[in-house]
Amino acid sequence: MKKFIEGLHKAFESRVRLGIMSALAVNDMLDFTSLKEYLDVTDGNLASHLKALEKEGFIGVKKTFVERKPNTRYSMTRVGKTAFEAHLEALEALIRSQK
Amino acid sequence: MKKFIEGLHKAFESRVRLGIMSALAVNDMLDFTSLKEYLDVTDGNLASHLKALEKEGFIGVKKTFVERKPNTRYSMTRVGKTAFEAHLEALEALIRSQK
Repeated sequence: MKKFIEGLHKAFESRVRLGIMSALAVNDMLDFTSLKEYLDVTDGNLASHLKALEKEGFIGVKKTFVERKPNTRYSMTRVGKTAFEAHLEALEALIRSQK
Repeated sequence: MKKFIEGLHKAFESRVRLGIMSALAVNDMLDFTSLKEYLDVTDGNLASHLKALEKEGFIGVKKTFVERKPNTRYSMTRVGKTAFEAHLEALEALIRSQK
C-alpha cells in the first residue's frame, strides 16, 4: 500500500489540479477562460491551483495580448508531463490492487 | 473534463485517505497500528484523516481492549464502499481519457 501512496504526487492531490493537468495533457495550450470552462471552477480557485502547479514547474505560463486584451495561456512542461504520467501510473496501480 | 472531476469525491483527494480506503477495501478490519504501518504516516496525520472519513460516514470505528490495552479497529462502511468505488471509477475514466 505504501508504495502506491509514495507514487502519488502531493501536488496532484486536488481534483482541480488533476483536471488542469488532464486538460493540458490533451491540449498543447489553454488560456485561463478555456480552463475555467473545462473545469467549471471559480477564478480564484483556478488561479490558486495554477499558481501552485507553476511553482512546482509543472506548467508554463505565456502572457500575450489578444485584440489588446491580456491573454494568459498555460501549457504543461516536460517535467510536469513526466510527473503527471508517474502519478497516473501510481493511481492505476492502486486501482488494480482493488480488483 | 468536468464530468471526471465531478465524479471525484473531495473526501478522497488526499493520498493518505486513498490509502486508508484501499487498505480497508482489502481488509475487513484494521487497527490503528496496522494502518499506520501500511501507510507509513505519523499518528497525528493518520488520526486526522481517519476522523475525517469517520465524519463522512465512510468508515466505522470499534473500540475494544486487547490484553487490557485499548485497541481501535476501523472498517469500511457500506456507504464508504459505494463512494470509494465511484471515486475509483471516476479516476479510471480520467486515466482512460489520457490514453
